[in-house]
Amino acid sequence: MWIILTYDINEKRVDKIRKISLQYLIRIQNSVFIGDIGWASLRILKERLKKEIVESEDSIQFFILRDEKLVKRIKLGVSYEFSNII
Amino acid sequence: MWIILTYDINEKRVDKIRKISLQYLIRIQNSVFIGDIGWASLRILKERLKKEIVESEDSIQFFILRDEKLVKRIKLGVSYEFSNII
Repeated sequence: MWIILTYDINEKRVDKIRKISLQYLIRIQNSVFIGDIGWASLRILKERLKKEIVESEDSIQFFILRDEKLVKRIKLGVSYEFSNII
Repeated sequence: MWIILTYDINEKRVDKIRKISLQYLIRIQNSVFIGDIGWASLRILKERLKKEIVESEDSIQFFILRDEKLVKRIKLGVSYEFSNII
């Protein structure tokens, strides 16, 4: 399926969270990632991120869609899509 | 329809962008907003934001879905949903 991951992470932990997310998804903004991912990988990604965050301070949200075709995307301004470069 | 708006905005302009976005959507993270919105309002929102950003420095993305039911949402950590409080 296709997902959007967004986060607000304390700066002490954000490098780690970004590196993990980049192993599974493409970065499109500072704290926004998108990509095609299977259920198994999503589960692993979620567990890995959960271990790193402090639940009372950090926030991660996954928006999960069956298919990228269900979403229309409009971009304003700078558009950069990192491939898996850390 | 239902949209997710995400942005990376220079701090000089971010207050303005946040205030405009809050007039149409609900804030769920520092730079992530969601909400039900009609085409007409989306067009106005897009035009208003476009006027405020510097296209070479700032980035705004809209993810547009026909229906909220098409998306499954998973949250880790802090979950706050501002209503339209600025």
